Amino acid sequence: MNSKDVKILLVEDNPDDVELTFRAFKKHNLANEIIVAKDGEEALNILLPQKKENAKRPDLILLDLKLPKVDGLEVLRQVKSNPETKPIPVVILTSSREEKDLMESYHLGVNSYIRKPVDFEQFTKVVIQLGLYWLLLNEAPPKE
Amino acid sequence: MNSKDVKILLVEDNPDDVELTFRAFKKHNLANEIIVAKDGEEALNILLPQKKENAKRPDLILLDLKLPKVDGLEVLRQVKSNPETKPIPVVILTSSREEKDLMESYHLGVNSYIRKPVDFEQFTKVVIQLGLYWLLLNEAPPKE
Repeated sequence: MNSKDVKILLVEDNPDDVELTFRAFKKHNLANEIIVAKDGEEALNILLPQKKENAKRPDLILLDLKLPKVDGLEVLRQVKSNPETKPIPVVILTSSREEKDLMESYHLGVNSYIRKPVDFEQFTKVVIQLGLYWLLLNEAPPKE
Repeated sequence: MNSKDVKILLVEDNPDDVELTFRAFKKHNLANEIIVAKDGEEALNILLPQKKENAKRPDLILLDLKLPKVDGLEVLRQVKSNPETKPIPVVILTSSREEKDLMESYHLGVNSYIRKPVDFEQFTKVVIQLGLYWLLLNEAPPKE
């Protein structure tokens, strides 16, 4: 897969949420080009690897907050403080109900913040709506 | 109107686009709390007035790029470089087809960038979709 083809980087450690997201996107033909990182360290290695030429530049990052190794806020901080990755839209998709996570995400420059519905049908609907918004309506930053 | 009640700041100098946006939002009961700024200077006076206590904090800023007095990119730059206004989601809604506007907006920290369709029915649809996404799906930053 050419790095230019990657549409979505899904950073999520819960296999059920990964599967639900894939299914929702598949239904709307948005699933072809998703890659998954199971923790924050893996996400950073994909986006900001030691060898720059291996870096992938997705059109959208879907980021959970509670992650093994490196948490979501730290991934967000690094992505948004590096001029190479700053333009990539990052949507936090979290079950956190904590106001401080919400506030800190916006101060770090998150593009959008969405609370995961507990109900799985609702979860699917939300994932579809956000996929359609970010992949069809929003104009992604050009690949530099 | 209390500043806490303001949902949307629409920064737009074209009266036709203002009217279309109002109508689209009204249809979906999203129109109650919109304020309009007709140029960039007016927008900055609403968001970052000389007397801090007069500042309004909308949940969403819809920002045109080509604006009289102060252009949209300068408004975006000031909003995103001030910690008080940085958390407010800013969506660029523009007829610009220029790649450099797109790139610069993302580097300045825009939350989302949408090209205005020329066709007015399409325009209405896009405005509704973005209103629903940002006002119902997205979790707005808490008012500090």
